[in-house]
Amino acid sequence: MIGVLSNAGVMEGAGYHSESKAKEYKHVCKRACQRAVDRLKAGALAVEAVTAALVELEDSPFTNAGMGSNLNLSGGIECDASIMDGKSLHYGAVGAISGIKNPVLVANRLLSEAQRGKLSAGRIPPCFLVGRGAHDWAVSHGIPPCPSEKMATKFSLSAYKRNKRKMELAEKLDTGHNQTKKRRQSCENENGSGCLDTVGAVVVDLEGNVAAAVSSGGLAMKHPGRVGQAAHYGCGCWAENTCNMNPYSTAVSTSGSPFLASEDRVLGGVIVLRCCRCVEAPPSQNIQGILVEFLWSHTTESMCVGYMSAQDSKAKTHISRLPPGTVPGQCLAIEGGVCRLSVVE
Amino acid sequence: MIGVLSNAGVMEGAGYHSESKAKEYKHVCKRACQRAVDRLKAGALAVEAVTAALVELEDSPFTNAGMGSNLNLSGGIECDASIMDGKSLHYGAVGAISGIKNPVLVANRLLSEAQRGKLSAGRIPPCFLVGRGAHDWAVSHGIPPCPSEKMATKFSLSAYKRNKRKMELAEKLDTGHNQTKKRRQSCENENGSGCLDTVGAVVVDLEGNVAAAVSSGGLAMKHPGRVGQAAHYGCGCWAENTCNMNPYSTAVSTSGSPFLASEDRVLGGVIVLRCCRCVEAPPSQNIQGILVEFLWSHTTESMCVGYMSAQDSKAKTHISRLPPGTVPGQCLAIEGGVCRLSVVE
Repeated sequence: MIGVLSNAGVMEGAGYHSESKAKEYKHVCKRACQRAVDRLKAGALAVEAVTAALVELEDSPFTNAGMGSNLNLSGGIECDASIMDGKSLHYGAVGAISGIKNPVLVANRLLSEAQRGKLSAGRIPPCFLVGRGAHDWAVSHGIPPCPSEKMATKFSLSAYKRNKRKMELAEKLDTGHNQTKKRRQSCENENGSGCLDTVGAVVVDLEGNVAAAVSSGGLAMKHPGRVGQAAHYGCGCWAENTCNMNPYSTAVSTSGSPFLASEDRVLGGVIVLRCCRCVEAPPSQNIQGILVEFLWSHTTESMCVGYMSAQDSKAKTHISRLPPGTVPGQCLAIEGGVCRLSVVE
Repeated sequence: MIGVLSNAGVMEGAGYHSESKAKEYKHVCKRACQRAVDRLKAGALAVEAVTAALVELEDSPFTNAGMGSNLNLSGGIECDASIMDGKSLHYGAVGAISGIKNPVLVANRLLSEAQRGKLSAGRIPPCFLVGRGAHDWAVSHGIPPCPSEKMATKFSLSAYKRNKRKMELAEKLDTGHNQTKKRRQSCENENGSGCLDTVGAVVVDLEGNVAAAVSSGGLAMKHPGRVGQAAHYGCGCWAENTCNMNPYSTAVSTSGSPFLASEDRVLGGVIVLRCCRCVEAPPSQNIQGILVEFLWSHTTESMCVGYMSAQDSKAKTHISRLPPGTVPGQCLAIEGGVCRLSVVE
């Protein structure tokens, strides 16, 4: 097979992106797309390419994933990540994991270990590990530990101090009042300090397999042990190859807080990749095509996306914003595009 | 309101129930139903009643939940539990929690805390906590810690020793061979030692609200930090009151391993409660009824169920078995019934 068909869509954080940071975010997305495409060109499958993109996103100190994640209530870093392979429908996830630079590598390793079949004495391999157990499993499978203090950044530490002060002030104000009442009233979204910059990616490889992954440092000042949607099966990401019943392969990666059904404002973002085979030329020429739709949507003020196919020389990036004057959480932006990729078989 | 309408269905473990143990299992289910109905008669809502049933099931040393849970690879006990309120659609869950006698109490407390609204400084309360963080949260919310050694039973300890020997033997046999190959071959289900006796319950209260809950000690010899379906949103339990779009209220609780799509044998069980209002008498008499369907299904060799309404003097219990000669995991048993409950308003 000479032709390559691939498409890597990367979502960097549904949240608020100031103009000054926009450049950084675009750079990160660009590098992540390039990473995934490099792997695809080298013959990697979708799962491997999506992992490579996520590692790049996690390594950026600007995203709330891996390095630079939000600090929790006790000043620690606990990350969530998950990955899904559309071909096997296998899934791997870690929740509230500490001391690992790239949580997606652990999720990916859980997925690949599960694909190898049962453990000794017929034991079922885990697909979702949390906390200390997840950390120990990772290290025993060759993923190096990383001291938590190395994963904090100047930005995350100062956001922690700011949030801590805000909390102390709010709790002081509550003293002497009816706490419950106060709690319900203080409903402005004050998790503003870098809280929603979850990262994710969706990929289709040259065989037409799809994969999706997501990684998040979770909410700022969350309670230790809190696991967010990024680690929830069927919530953070989904990938499913075409089958008899369904002509489309689909990969989805989400960020935000869909759990909060009672919230007056639901903040989140999603990227979707959907593709199907199509005929481009007479079958005698053995040229087949894949029609790829890539779309993104968010209710947050802004979301940074990037996308690239193996036919492109570099990734396109874009910061999508809600229309001026609209209220985040009460309004939705949807954008996207379609492209046709050729495969010569 | 004078009339009471309620139905508590309890599932005790899809697994293998020897004739000798059948009596014990039935007793546990009976007590759990009674507990829930007692609460309902005292005016409790569905969530509270379902929690009471689960506490009884967890406290039994015969079930794989709370007291008597399977031991993990390092000989510890880590439990999963979740609960859902059909009225608010709020959900609470704990995963891989240690040192707490009744994990369902923590899940229930997470749910009720979330219903109280945001925390100080606008922080979103957690709905899913794992590991050490979950334990600490529970204790700080007044749920007493319980030493893990008190939760182990003679049965769970001897099963652990047996499994450990089995594992060591299997690994010894592997030495010198291609381990990967061996792993795939040793595919008999050897998690037999009490592994699937997850417990769950579904309830409808006198206002017509439904609730569901589930609790599990997880697989025997699982890796520490492994979280099973009982703690997965949308997997272990679901409850949803009737709404404009849907005339039925539904509560579901599951056990088993639905994640293992590639497994040749899918072992699991489910209880379902579905109900809708119906008219029993002329509206002038102010008598309304609720039509309740309660059904159970399992692919395991057997499953113990119990059910009781506030109109019954005691719970009915039943050990459902697959037909003789059928293979567990490849065959399904479905049973159930319908009853009509009266409410005088």
